[in-house]
Amino acid sequence: MADRKLSTRAEDFAEWYNQLVLRAEMADYAPVRGCMIVRPYGWALWENITAALDRRFKATGHMNAAFPLLIPRSFIDKEQHHVEGFSPELAVVTIGGGEKLEEPLVIRPTSETIIGHAYAKWIQSYRDLPVLINQWNSVVRWELRTKLFLRTLEFFWQEGHTAHATLEEAEAETRQMLDIYTDFAMRDAAIPVIAGRKSDSEKFAGADITYSIEAMMGDGKALQSGTSHNLGQNFAKAFDIKYLDKNGVHQFCWTTSWGLSTRFVGAIVMVHGDDQGLILPPRLAPYQVVIVPIFKSDDEKRTVFDAARKIREQLVSADIRVKLDERDGMSPGFKFNDWEMRGVPLRVELGPKDVAGGNVVLARRDKPGREGKTSVSQQGIAAVVAETLEQIQNALFQRALEFRKANTIEPKDYGEFKAAVEKGFALAHWCGSADCEAKIKEETKATMRCIPLEQNGGAGKCIYCRKSAPEQAIFARAY
Amino acid sequence: MADRKLSTRAEDFAEWYNQLVLRAEMADYAPVRGCMIVRPYGWALWENITAALDRRFKATGHMNAAFPLLIPRSFIDKEQHHVEGFSPELAVVTIGGGEKLEEPLVIRPTSETIIGHAYAKWIQSYRDLPVLINQWNSVVRWELRTKLFLRTLEFFWQEGHTAHATLEEAEAETRQMLDIYTDFAMRDAAIPVIAGRKSDSEKFAGADITYSIEAMMGDGKALQSGTSHNLGQNFAKAFDIKYLDKNGVHQFCWTTSWGLSTRFVGAIVMVHGDDQGLILPPRLAPYQVVIVPIFKSDDEKRTVFDAARKIREQLVSADIRVKLDERDGMSPGFKFNDWEMRGVPLRVELGPKDVAGGNVVLARRDKPGREGKTSVSQQGIAAVVAETLEQIQNALFQRALEFRKANTIEPKDYGEFKAAVEKGFALAHWCGSADCEAKIKEETKATMRCIPLEQNGGAGKCIYCRKSAPEQAIFARAY
Repeated sequence: MADRKLSTRAEDFAEWYNQLVLRAEMADYAPVRGCMIVRPYGWALWENITAALDRRFKATGHMNAAFPLLIPRSFIDKEQHHVEGFSPELAVVTIGGGEKLEEPLVIRPTSETIIGHAYAKWIQSYRDLPVLINQWNSVVRWELRTKLFLRTLEFFWQEGHTAHATLEEAEAETRQMLDIYTDFAMRDAAIPVIAGRKSDSEKFAGADITYSIEAMMGDGKALQSGTSHNLGQNFAKAFDIKYLDKNGVHQFCWTTSWGLSTRFVGAIVMVHGDDQGLILPPRLAPYQVVIVPIFKSDDEKRTVFDAARKIREQLVSADIRVKLDERDGMSPGFKFNDWEMRGVPLRVELGPKDVAGGNVVLARRDKPGREGKTSVSQQGIAAVVAETLEQIQNALFQRALEFRKANTIEPKDYGEFKAAVEKGFALAHWCGSADCEAKIKEETKATMRCIPLEQNGGAGKCIYCRKSAPEQAIFARAY
Repeated sequence: MADRKLSTRAEDFAEWYNQLVLRAEMADYAPVRGCMIVRPYGWALWENITAALDRRFKATGHMNAAFPLLIPRSFIDKEQHHVEGFSPELAVVTIGGGEKLEEPLVIRPTSETIIGHAYAKWIQSYRDLPVLINQWNSVVRWELRTKLFLRTLEFFWQEGHTAHATLEEAEAETRQMLDIYTDFAMRDAAIPVIAGRKSDSEKFAGADITYSIEAMMGDGKALQSGTSHNLGQNFAKAFDIKYLDKNGVHQFCWTTSWGLSTRFVGAIVMVHGDDQGLILPPRLAPYQVVIVPIFKSDDEKRTVFDAARKIREQLVSADIRVKLDERDGMSPGFKFNDWEMRGVPLRVELGPKDVAGGNVVLARRDKPGREGKTSVSQQGIAAVVAETLEQIQNALFQRALEFRKANTIEPKDYGEFKAAVEKGFALAHWCGSADCEAKIKEETKATMRCIPLEQNGGAGKCIYCRKSAPEQAIFARAY
């Protein structure tokens, strides 16, 4: 697969992305239109994402559970905004066990309704609160325009659902989970996301407030990479989730939900990848290191493989995820390209001369050519590799941050705004009116991504209507 | 929940099971008939099962992936036995995005077909083999008589799917995975399973050979607890999974599949539980230890909690999963009962006298009353607890093994056979004819569970027709 050239990102970013996801064997198209198969290499990346998030969820008191994928159709209708948002996207089961069902069932597009139904039953008293549950599953939304990882009929995600006694606690939970997503994105995925609040027109169907993390892709477009919703009492009222407070009075609960999906895999591809292929952040890479043995004769092969296996042992003992490429009949050059395409952060090259000298060559994926190569001793190699991986992790973050900064403009006027969203983000004052937001979208294809939590600009004038605007917002074209 | 008495197992085993699963908050009924919600405590147990298996799968070279839950209806029809087995059980999606679909889709009842379709595309040459993939997901089968964990419309499981160049390799894989299930059941779940081969009438729809592990529940009935199938070339031919061999000739692959599901949670409940509730094997228990503080005055509470937290720290540092019960307004007695019902293997009781003496009381869940209690020093408690947990693990296995032995009869004649399957397993010679098997089932409600791989009995005469029979088989009534 590594022998044909990829499209470059400059030529056709969308085509580069698609080819790369397929060739790196991250995912494949499924027989059902719009569905995807996540292949082992892609799933291994998702498993590492899963582990990094799950650890944070559990450390903050959440437990996982599993709610059914089949939901009575009538459940969706119970929350007024929810039904408007999700009805057009439903997959409906009408036949079960050979018979027409009395009530059609839908495959969950998200689980607020079925979980709300359960919470209403489980929660009786303030002693039962908070309820802090997450689930790892897949959901189905009948999307018309699909793209591997970014938008598929079925996608994989986690959805957290919590219930609280007060609005303040629900809001604190909503913000805590947003912070967790931000921390994960920055620290583990090396993606400098911007955390902020969505506009009313972009928020989740049924939420009072939606927060999101937004990332800039390699083509300057935005990708919403995780969301956290304060659902107020909307679902509590629709599903009668009540508790008896300390004074013996029934109160509606305050609920939240928050999710991060396999879209995030797409973000990693599009933020870090280059024209040679993927570049995976070391903390999430399925293989952090690949060892490529170099040899000509059978004698050399034996010597080199012996040394390679010892190096592998050293790295495994240090909890480094390492692959020794033992494939027969492929040149080292082919293997180099292949693993570069798959984005393994660090390559260990090992030939007879290296063995004789007790050295190996380390080649960093993020620095192509000579610049990224160093010869290091085989002794104590695990520590050097671990340190180099940390450097790569930091370098990827810095590069992505600089790219985002270079492509984020604070436009002085609407003319500059229009130019800014052609190539990146515009950070502009916005009056908050849905009307200005809609006009901007119509005229520039840029949407209001979020109102960043960190506001440095003070008040100003709306970039569209010039009325006074308390805050700046990020506008961009988006996936 | 712990204040009402459970039904006893002797009174009504089925009722005891249902009450226990609900009260221990392992699972709950979902709004859709036959579906279940796995609650956090049940899911935490399943997560530990998942981890114990996943480690073994990866150590034997398997990787996880994710295939879609929606399958074209026509896929199911491609393998002749598969369609017969699964057609009556399908959930069918006929509407998507508000429109009637041209081809109906089914929610996967299992994934041989869609994975077969993908393998046909991915596998070209002998170099691509073996393909060793597993997935953790849920499947839907339209069951009419359902029971929490044991048989539900949607259930959670893993399904492994592999493709090989030869029959021998496929058979070796099938047996390897059976061995892994056996090892997991014995070592981690403390369940002494019997590994064996299924009869033709009980094998998987589309398999050449099905192996299973069978366990005896606390009422003497059998539960099939995991299966491993040698699919021969049936799916390879149906889906055209071919490879080019070393001589440049196209060959069909040989495939396998193997699965273990949330049923296994039911097995753990029914093998180890007693009239007080669950007894969870320490290696899989969500909490291995619960610390229950005992105090009267506020002063005592402070002292006891300080000591309790220190003990918790010691246990956490030793990777022991521990819960400190800090709930207010509940008596120690209530808490004892509550955690006994939930099956926590070891309780640490800590009162003012214990604190003063530098001791704690350990109470084993598997030995009720004084017999299971010892007072030990707080110093070095982690090592004592770890050792005690190991003892509990072994004791549970021994008890289950003795129970199975005591309730397994080698009947001399059909009269003894009929008596044997009233209360447990009959290990009897069977001629291999489907006719005898069907008659036995009709007359005794006992099914042929498996022909154990370990055969000690030599040849003999069929328990039903008295013709010569090469092997002994396990017959039992089953869940």
